[in-house]
Amino acid sequence: MERKIRMGMVGGGPGSFIGAVHRIAANLDGQIELVCGCFSSHPEKSLETGRSLFLPDNRIYASYQEMIEKESLLPEGERMDFVAITTPNHVHFGPAMMALEHGFHVVLDKPMTYTLEEARRLRDKVRETGLLFMLTHTYTAYPMVKEARERVRRGDFGKIRRVYVEYPQGWLYDDCAATNKQAAWRVDPTRSGKAGCMGDIGTHAFNLAEYITGLKTVELCGELNTFVPGRLLDDDGAALLRYEGGARGTLTASQVAVGVENGLNIRVYGEKGGLEWRQEEPNTMLVRWPDRPAEIVRVSNGYMSGIAAFNSRTPAGHPEGYIEAFANLYRNFALALRARLKGEEPAPETLDFPSVEEGVRGMRFIEAIVSTGATGEKWVKIAD
Amino acid sequence: MERKIRMGMVGGGPGSFIGAVHRIAANLDGQIELVCGCFSSHPEKSLETGRSLFLPDNRIYASYQEMIEKESLLPEGERMDFVAITTPNHVHFGPAMMALEHGFHVVLDKPMTYTLEEARRLRDKVRETGLLFMLTHTYTAYPMVKEARERVRRGDFGKIRRVYVEYPQGWLYDDCAATNKQAAWRVDPTRSGKAGCMGDIGTHAFNLAEYITGLKTVELCGELNTFVPGRLLDDDGAALLRYEGGARGTLTASQVAVGVENGLNIRVYGEKGGLEWRQEEPNTMLVRWPDRPAEIVRVSNGYMSGIAAFNSRTPAGHPEGYIEAFANLYRNFALALRARLKGEEPAPETLDFPSVEEGVRGMRFIEAIVSTGATGEKWVKIAD
Amino acid sequence: MERKIRMGMVGGGPGSFIGAVHRIAANLDGQIELVCGCFSSHPEKSLETGRSLFLPDNRIYASYQEMIEKESLLPEGERMDFVAITTPNHVHFGPAMMALEHGFHVVLDKPMTYTLEEARRLRDKVRETGLLFMLTHTYTAYPMVKEARERVRRGDFGKIRRVYVEYPQGWLYDDCAATNKQAAWRVDPTRSGKAGCMGDIGTHAFNLAEYITGLKTVELCGELNTFVPGRLLDDDGAALLRYEGGARGTLTASQVAVGVENGLNIRVYGEKGGLEWRQEEPNTMLVRWPDRPAEIVRVSNGYMSGIAAFNSRTPAGHPEGYIEAFANLYRNFALALRARLKGEEPAPETLDFPSVEEGVRGMRFIEAIVSTGATGEKWVKIAD
Amino acid sequence: MERKIRMGMVGGGPGSFIGAVHRIAANLDGQIELVCGCFSSHPEKSLETGRSLFLPDNRIYASYQEMIEKESLLPEGERMDFVAITTPNHVHFGPAMMALEHGFHVVLDKPMTYTLEEARRLRDKVRETGLLFMLTHTYTAYPMVKEARERVRRGDFGKIRRVYVEYPQGWLYDDCAATNKQAAWRVDPTRSGKAGCMGDIGTHAFNLAEYITGLKTVELCGELNTFVPGRLLDDDGAALLRYEGGARGTLTASQVAVGVENGLNIRVYGEKGGLEWRQEEPNTMLVRWPDRPAEIVRVSNGYMSGIAAFNSRTPAGHPEGYIEAFANLYRNFALALRARLKGEEPAPETLDFPSVEEGVRGMRFIEAIVSTGATGEKWVKIAD
Repeated sequence: MERKIRMGMVGGGPGSFIGAVHRIAANLDGQIELVCGCFSSHPEKSLETGRSLFLPDNRIYASYQEMIEKESLLPEGERMDFVAITTPNHVHFGPAMMALEHGFHVVLDKPMTYTLEEARRLRDKVRETGLLFMLTHTYTAYPMVKEARERVRRGDFGKIRRVYVEYPQGWLYDDCAATNKQAAWRVDPTRSGKAGCMGDIGTHAFNLAEYITGLKTVELCGELNTFVPGRLLDDDGAALLRYEGGARGTLTASQVAVGVENGLNIRVYGEKGGLEWRQEEPNTMLVRWPDRPAEIVRVSNGYMSGIAAFNSRTPAGHPEGYIEAFANLYRNFALALRARLKGEEPAPETLDFPSVEEGVRGMRFIEAIVSTGATGEKWVKIAD
Repeated sequence: MERKIRMGMVGGGPGSFIGAVHRIAANLDGQIELVCGCFSSHPEKSLETGRSLFLPDNRIYASYQEMIEKESLLPEGERMDFVAITTPNHVHFGPAMMALEHGFHVVLDKPMTYTLEEARRLRDKVRETGLLFMLTHTYTAYPMVKEARERVRRGDFGKIRRVYVEYPQGWLYDDCAATNKQAAWRVDPTRSGKAGCMGDIGTHAFNLAEYITGLKTVELCGELNTFVPGRLLDDDGAALLRYEGGARGTLTASQVAVGVENGLNIRVYGEKGGLEWRQEEPNTMLVRWPDRPAEIVRVSNGYMSGIAAFNSRTPAGHPEGYIEAFANLYRNFALALRARLKGEEPAPETLDFPSVEEGVRGMRFIEAIVSTGATGEKWVKIAD
Repeated sequence: MERKIRMGMVGGGPGSFIGAVHRIAANLDGQIELVCGCFSSHPEKSLETGRSLFLPDNRIYASYQEMIEKESLLPEGERMDFVAITTPNHVHFGPAMMALEHGFHVVLDKPMTYTLEEARRLRDKVRETGLLFMLTHTYTAYPMVKEARERVRRGDFGKIRRVYVEYPQGWLYDDCAATNKQAAWRVDPTRSGKAGCMGDIGTHAFNLAEYITGLKTVELCGELNTFVPGRLLDDDGAALLRYEGGARGTLTASQVAVGVENGLNIRVYGEKGGLEWRQEEPNTMLVRWPDRPAEIVRVSNGYMSGIAAFNSRTPAGHPEGYIEAFANLYRNFALALRARLKGEEPAPETLDFPSVEEGVRGMRFIEAIVSTGATGEKWVKIAD
Repeated sequence: MERKIRMGMVGGGPGSFIGAVHRIAANLDGQIELVCGCFSSHPEKSLETGRSLFLPDNRIYASYQEMIEKESLLPEGERMDFVAITTPNHVHFGPAMMALEHGFHVVLDKPMTYTLEEARRLRDKVRETGLLFMLTHTYTAYPMVKEARERVRRGDFGKIRRVYVEYPQGWLYDDCAATNKQAAWRVDPTRSGKAGCMGDIGTHAFNLAEYITGLKTVELCGELNTFVPGRLLDDDGAALLRYEGGARGTLTASQVAVGVENGLNIRVYGEKGGLEWRQEEPNTMLVRWPDRPAEIVRVSNGYMSGIAAFNSRTPAGHPEGYIEAFANLYRNFALALRARLKGEEPAPETLDFPSVEEGVRGMRFIEAIVSTGATGEKWVKIAD
């Protein structure tokens, strides 16, 4: 078979930010075509969105249940190969589980589910079916993050001692839920889950640190804060982290760091050197050494590792951004899926995307950070 | 009609950098589909590339002449709507002129042609046919460059006095033509034209400055240099510029600024304030004032102008890069073309892409900068 | 009287870094002259240093006891006015207390003493004698730090919610005590005190945050780490801080952040805006707002507050550094002392230097951070 | 003799910026004491300034002629050793020549004189007398500039090809001469000389480039501009430079780059690598290579060259600024003068300060740049 991979979509209707990004990311490398979708729980909005995407009316559905059922009856080569789910957190589990049960591969936005229990059930189903499952922790798909991970793995920095990971934002600094649709569901515990800021962005920071260092967090000691009056979930928090092997970390996340846009950043120091990376300037990594000048490592240069080069598209100095990182997720997923559809084993570099296992860890992190705020106990374990 | 716009491609075979970027840019917003192409002057390479892009064999052509002729015989709704030409400079004029003569709209890489004479003939043909023509001066498609232009236009900085525009690169610092395909044609006067560095990147700098300031360059005084032994074209140069209305500029371009990646940048100062922008961090513009702190203007914030917002896709802090700028060109071109195909007048913001007129100015700049190096005359006019 | 203020010095012999800085800082504004000193516990080294500073032999002393006694017998106008003490921590209390008892004003390096008990006794003596006492927390003497404090105080940012203060360094990343005199005493509990990294630089971070925000830390929850094998004191640590009024902070300090030079930095976010300042580029402060571009506030511009202008010397763009900050301490101390010597009340801006009270708070911070690492209790109070 | 070096001062009265900086710079290292001065052409202002500096009335003079005459009658060990002249340009030659004629060593602010003819006469007198003469081109005294020069000299970057040197400022963007004393004389040809901006700051840029590269400028092609209506001298300009050995440069200087503080910067690229340095962040130099990451070279690290280390005072990460650079000039001058007074040959590193020869070159640059604007000739020679 040499055809594009077929994508169906749940979510991403009018006013959705992340749904549009998923589509752009899927388009970018010309490997995937959108063939159907249920873009809104309002059928007329779903139809409007689908038509604007040049879909025929009979592939625009009124509910995800309808879509999954009808698509599963279409012949191979016509029906969607996988479904991308970009709804708020409380509508993650339903369509994801149903898609897996009907034999569809799944792309799911983070955090994985509304509860840890749902996450465990999804993991079990993925393990049972063997279907491909990708969680869109976008930030680990930047080529420079892959370079960072590779350099840690090959020992450039020696044993890791100290991690600082931060995710400051400012956009929820006041009570904007009434006027901002993106804000509304994130600060609503019935749609977002137990944690607000820590679920939305703290999980990204947690995942980024584990991805780069290759270390699992064993326990944490933290505090959640809610600064905006009347808000029901945390909008800020911080934690001390203890990693396996003795490394120590601090993780902070805030959505009231007023004026900060999307300041995810990480610094990792080992026995022999360290690295520093900032999401807002993602093509640059600072590498520090004890006895010589710091180096400005830049994407797409000849000295980059293979895995980083595999995840970038332009020559040095032609900046790649958030959308390209997101497209790396989809491109890798599509390549892995293409191999599967051919009955081949996917190449390892194509499987380098966040899986259902990372999804469970993210939910465990949320459990731990919520409980540390609530008890007097200093250290809370993050079980695997 | 609600269908995707159909693109054919000339160039972009194996090893091409810019051809792949054109395709990605065209894919990104889901407005355009690639329907045919002649990707190489070697038919087997053209076939190989076309198949990897999921094209049927009968739409993969062995020559651009064959493609344009055969496509023009296909029914509307099946044949390509426009052709994108991404070949080296000496193969710009031929396919572009032939496409226009067969009624196809054209997207063409810069500099527009091999000679000024060709540029004039192309301009006349575009004027005569009324077809859409876009020259891919990518850098003016960044949202922040549009913001800069808009702020100059609305008078934020007062009358412009001083422009510094620079385009340093380092990748041609040694004699790499034998081993680097991208380098080989750029340093070869039979493929590149009268100018090397100034044609390849100096034209971008020249165009950027005129785009942002809205001022035409009247005359220049400059010097071209060739530092790498044996090279036949300039690899470095500088010029003093005089703009209409009394503003003064300096333009420098170099491909031997060793270690610099793609350092296009511009600074513009007027009577009341100034702006500074660097391509390698394209989402940021520094705005300077005499009596208060400099401001860090950032893409996708609420304070951005409408034309900048129209050309960006992600929230603040989610960096957009070179590919998104390139995609803005294609998206705008596609929207304008869609209007044309419907018999409507394109919206003004969709026509904000570089035209054949900018192409002629770029060729005039090349003429002038080449002649200033060759004569003892200090100032050389750039006629319109 | 119009004469220079007369300084005596304890410490600052061969190989001392901070002693030389104290002298340069005292020289800079031409307000102070060095008239005597005991520069080393080795009399011959003291003599050598004193002579290199153009002191007559009879004002170069073999012990601080000798110096304080003999100087106190000299006539006013000849004897020193104050003593500057720049010895390791365990030799702070002795000369400071003796100087106060003999009526000399005191300048003392930080942390104030070896133990909290000594700090309390010194504070009581200062209160009792009314003599001037300055603790050299240099970093709060930068003009931009004063600007930051002033802007918080006047309410620019609204009520403060979130503080991040960090002090990473890398120079103790390995076991350098044997070869580096500066390192040797800092990692030795018999000379440094209960804390290593947290005493040496954590106290600076703690002090900086309280100075800028004007808020007192109520309690903390933290962890001290020792990464270098065999080291007896902490070389890294982190704490969550709770400030009066509900603000939350994180404080990190490390001397194993390999490759980092002297990275003290602070970010403060309130209800209406925020500020960010980094010691390594001290003349710049970023000010963030929710609804408009971030501003790059720069020292010596017309928009700076009076207290910042009072503490800078050069026009904008002529960078002032660490030595100028240190000189601000000495200049302000000298102006205040000159007023005292004339029987006048010092102007308030001249008294804006760290006092014995800040010294006691620093010692309390050390107590708290050491105990938080040792107990299972989550929050430890910092009594006043 | 072991005593401080004795300085007399001409200029530096109330409202002077640079005079105060000279004093601070001379104070800083404790090598120099101010013993006398004529601080203003108004005797009462001279007296007021001298008293504020703790000078006795009999060493505060009403004219520089009086000062030089009376000081020359004082016994060695009491009279001044050298004179520092910090007046506007038209009062440079008179006191400098008279001081040399009376056997005093001289420190003089730049540009050296009002006319090239004066500069030549001063040079001849210095050569004739053998007295020490220092021109305060401060910017070459930064430790990182010395590092840059050293790395070029030892061949790190190969043969130099391309220099970009810029000196943008914004403070004269409007007609501020009436209200700003610093501005008033700089824009007045009767006090400043033939050039305004190019004399004041262009000469710094010219000197910096020749200092770092070790190359002499052979000819230039440029243009001077006056943007502020009614101004009699240039406030902006640019030039193409040709260096000996084939290197090419561009030099720009502007005082209407509104909002820019003191943006002197230089970039130098050779066959093997390049360097980039900015005065506003003077402790950092970027070093670029073709095949590996750019390096962030920072002052006071162990890898710095001896001459850079000799010119810095604090550990890495403790920023040194403009005043420390200025103090390097005075410290080096004082050490060289001390050797001379002892009848010894000064150590080479102490003689690394700008001399009367650089002063003549600066005046020749002014001649050339003024004439290039006035004639139609493209290239103007800079004779030695």
